[in-house]
Amino acid sequence: MEFHISNMDSLKFDHDHENNSHIITNPLDPQEFRRNGHLVIDFIADYYQNIEKYQVLSQVEPGYLRKLLPESAPYHAEPIEIILQDVQKYIMPGITHWQSPNYFAYFPSSGSVAGFLGEMLSTGFNVVGFNWMSSPAATELECIVMDWLGEMLKLPKSFLFSGNGGGVLQGTTCEAILCTLTAARDQMLSQFGRDKIGNLVVYGSDQTHSALQKAAQIAGIYPKNFRAIKTTKSTLYGLCPNSLRATIQSDVQAGLVPLFLCATVGTTSTNAIDPIGPLCEVAKDFGIWVHIDAAYAGSAFICPEFRHFIDGIEGANSFTLNAHKWFFTTLDCCCLWVKDPSALIKSLSTNAEFLRNKASDSKQVVDYKDWQITLSRRFRAMKLWLVLRNYGVANLRNFLRSHVKMAKLFEELVGLDNRFEVIAPRNFALVCFRVLPSPKGMDGYEEGEAKQVERANELNKKLLESINGSGKVYMSPTVVDGAYIIRCAIGATLTEERHVIMAWKIVKEHAATLLSKY
Amino acid sequence: MEFHISNMDSLKFDHDHENNSHIITNPLDPQEFRRNGHLVIDFIADYYQNIEKYQVLSQVEPGYLRKLLPESAPYHAEPIEIILQDVQKYIMPGITHWQSPNYFAYFPSSGSVAGFLGEMLSTGFNVVGFNWMSSPAATELECIVMDWLGEMLKLPKSFLFSGNGGGVLQGTTCEAILCTLTAARDQMLSQFGRDKIGNLVVYGSDQTHSALQKAAQIAGIYPKNFRAIKTTKSTLYGLCPNSLRATIQSDVQAGLVPLFLCATVGTTSTNAIDPIGPLCEVAKDFGIWVHIDAAYAGSAFICPEFRHFIDGIEGANSFTLNAHKWFFTTLDCCCLWVKDPSALIKSLSTNAEFLRNKASDSKQVVDYKDWQITLSRRFRAMKLWLVLRNYGVANLRNFLRSHVKMAKLFEELVGLDNRFEVIAPRNFALVCFRVLPSPKGMDGYEEGEAKQVERANELNKKLLESINGSGKVYMSPTVVDGAYIIRCAIGATLTEERHVIMAWKIVKEHAATLLSKY
Repeated sequence: MEFHISNMDSLKFDHDHENNSHIITNPLDPQEFRRNGHLVIDFIADYYQNIEKYQVLSQVEPGYLRKLLPESAPYHAEPIEIILQDVQKYIMPGITHWQSPNYFAYFPSSGSVAGFLGEMLSTGFNVVGFNWMSSPAATELECIVMDWLGEMLKLPKSFLFSGNGGGVLQGTTCEAILCTLTAARDQMLSQFGRDKIGNLVVYGSDQTHSALQKAAQIAGIYPKNFRAIKTTKSTLYGLCPNSLRATIQSDVQAGLVPLFLCATVGTTSTNAIDPIGPLCEVAKDFGIWVHIDAAYAGSAFICPEFRHFIDGIEGANSFTLNAHKWFFTTLDCCCLWVKDPSALIKSLSTNAEFLRNKASDSKQVVDYKDWQITLSRRFRAMKLWLVLRNYGVANLRNFLRSHVKMAKLFEELVGLDNRFEVIAPRNFALVCFRVLPSPKGMDGYEEGEAKQVERANELNKKLLESINGSGKVYMSPTVVDGAYIIRCAIGATLTEERHVIMAWKIVKEHAATLLSKY
Repeated sequence: MEFHISNMDSLKFDHDHENNSHIITNPLDPQEFRRNGHLVIDFIADYYQNIEKYQVLSQVEPGYLRKLLPESAPYHAEPIEIILQDVQKYIMPGITHWQSPNYFAYFPSSGSVAGFLGEMLSTGFNVVGFNWMSSPAATELECIVMDWLGEMLKLPKSFLFSGNGGGVLQGTTCEAILCTLTAARDQMLSQFGRDKIGNLVVYGSDQTHSALQKAAQIAGIYPKNFRAIKTTKSTLYGLCPNSLRATIQSDVQAGLVPLFLCATVGTTSTNAIDPIGPLCEVAKDFGIWVHIDAAYAGSAFICPEFRHFIDGIEGANSFTLNAHKWFFTTLDCCCLWVKDPSALIKSLSTNAEFLRNKASDSKQVVDYKDWQITLSRRFRAMKLWLVLRNYGVANLRNFLRSHVKMAKLFEELVGLDNRFEVIAPRNFALVCFRVLPSPKGMDGYEEGEAKQVERANELNKKLLESINGSGKVYMSPTVVDGAYIIRCAIGATLTEERHVIMAWKIVKEHAATLLSKY
């Protein structure tokens, strides 16, 4: 195979002039794979080695890339060396470096060597594991690792294959919630009649991830029947079981049908905890499907000291955590366990003739296509298997504990400085804090409460813009009870204690500059 | 970092006995990444080099893997070398080798060096590109490559960003259809009232992919309002516009509301073509959303000689092709273009406070989270960009043409043998054929037509089992008009003419053995 470095002319393709020097006959040539694969491994290894040199949050302007790239795809082949140069020159400035040790925004997108290698193997085999037969190892390994991880989390046996439940790897929690909600919906409608879809009610709190609302929208739940029950500081922004009961009762009295509760352990905003046991008790009285969304925090439950947060899970129907958030698998890898796989299958199965086969007809195998939205599915179990084996339970617990320890350190540093306050209790590795403006207005006179809130919010917004604009760290905001808050989520794989100490130093410096003006 | 080869004891984790030799402090250590990355590149390169030695269709029995793997995740770290040995020993036998040159089943899952490298870069950056700001390059590159590919396909300008439409990369066609159907549904309901959901009707043919039915189920369309309009041999199993019109008219007379048509170009079963122009004319009369599903065949439209199959696309609302099927990107990479992104956005957007940012508020950027089901999204544009650049338009056309040419060869070989017949016309690189039993029954007496059909079906089923059981090739079945048919889909990246000739030889040999018994 020969390469020719393209000039600008060859980037246009307006007519078919053939040129032998660009002809590629085998796009999966093993030698070419080997040569270019090694190149890209080194490229990425160098990236991780130098990652602290980049500004964490990309500082480009909207539309920056269109100005830099050609208007059309190239007519002739371009060599990988040139493409990698362009990645460096054009793409890199527009990357927000989620793998940077100074990345503290949203939740981590946790990569690892093992996760990366698993992704490589999965991409290398490139099987489409829609049913068992299409690649038995893909399905069977998934069943096995989901039981392994389920046991590590001490999930009730009823959620494991060994207890007639089972786990499945989906892309994201959004898909998992949509699947379970659809299953719950169809179960209910088969009882009450299809025409009752307008009566079904879905419950969450005002802290529940927007994934629930979106899933409800897609599944045809009427927008007026979506309940985001208000939480308060008194319950640390967890959903109060009494509020849930009152809301359901009033819906029942209005002739509506309570359908589905999404309870969250570790909300996106502040890591609030919905009390699983008591909520499941309420749900049980009304025959509601309970889904537990532990997208971020779920991984921590492999550590005995955190497991109590999902005590009572026996009463729930399904449970998710995102292994790509805080379990080192790289995006995407959402782990969903259900007690009753047949509910998913009843709702999501289709029986196309071209997919029929002996193994499926025998009902002795799992066909994951009937557990999810899509037919085609990647071999995601490979990366979860590699993470579990290449690190082992002991290291995985230590990784998570070290993040929690660093978050505790950051929390302590904030707590020691009386210009700041920690807003919500820190349950895992997320610290929510803000800087406090002086209690009086800029003019020295006392100001009303609303004015104070507004000023505090403006100050914190400015502070966040200022630290993120520095490119040295990246944190993200939330708003709770009207207050603008800064979130510092620790969990990027490369983060060490020194990065956390430096992050706090940067926050303090930028705050000092701002406070002098306020 | 030190490794210790685990013995069976260390595979159990019943108590926390720490052992320093297994401690890993940095799971994203660049040197470890480099060393292990090179190992796995060589592992996969060797796999491609030796791929013909493996049986194409895995011959394992259900449950094979549980017997081979430990019951629990290991407590201590295991080195990558041991894991790779286990991949070879335990996983490989359960892999169906979709990348084998002798893989002719379903549709191809087309890998390539460029696609693999793109996946590596995307996994290496591991950004979560939900909105523009979360990693501007991920969004902007996606907009750009979708315009590039749209132009290569000569899509109407109204489907491109440059014409106020736009493209988005989703996982699979199932997701894309669900998104467009939800958008169409909400548009209609906002006009007719939410309570009319039970009146909405979705149209496809009896050849349409089950993705449509599943999407309709999930979106809450009443099962009784799903129309799989019958096709016949007379239209080569394409959906007849008159049949569509008649079906719609009868629904309208019954007080129902026609909503959505999924027209297919290159059906899964036989590559049938729904006539886009005439169907769009019918749809226009009733204000129906038309989605064109060209999951497999779509890639071919970059060749001018195939582009006519979507003539009339101007009248459609959305269009999909799966670049992971026949465009070398590896799974998953579904390209969806829509004329009216705002319809998607109205249905699929959510506005969580924690995601608010200046760029989004300015409405100057694309936030792809509002174009799809999920919030989190991978940087899929990277692999499409690499495929387009590393091969260029000329090579990509040649790759596809070479597959079509090989399919033509296979079709000719079948046609020359009067014991076989080619069933449906070959439009792209799929050949549907079957072996013909002798016209009389085994006892020498004439038999009825039903009996003949049954015998032919049994013979072809046996033939397929026989060739797939040999492990030398893998083809898959379909049933059309009650006839059991064998599908030979050419498009695995490594397939060369010699593999196709050999495949035909194997089919003939196995048929000869069977025919001697029938």
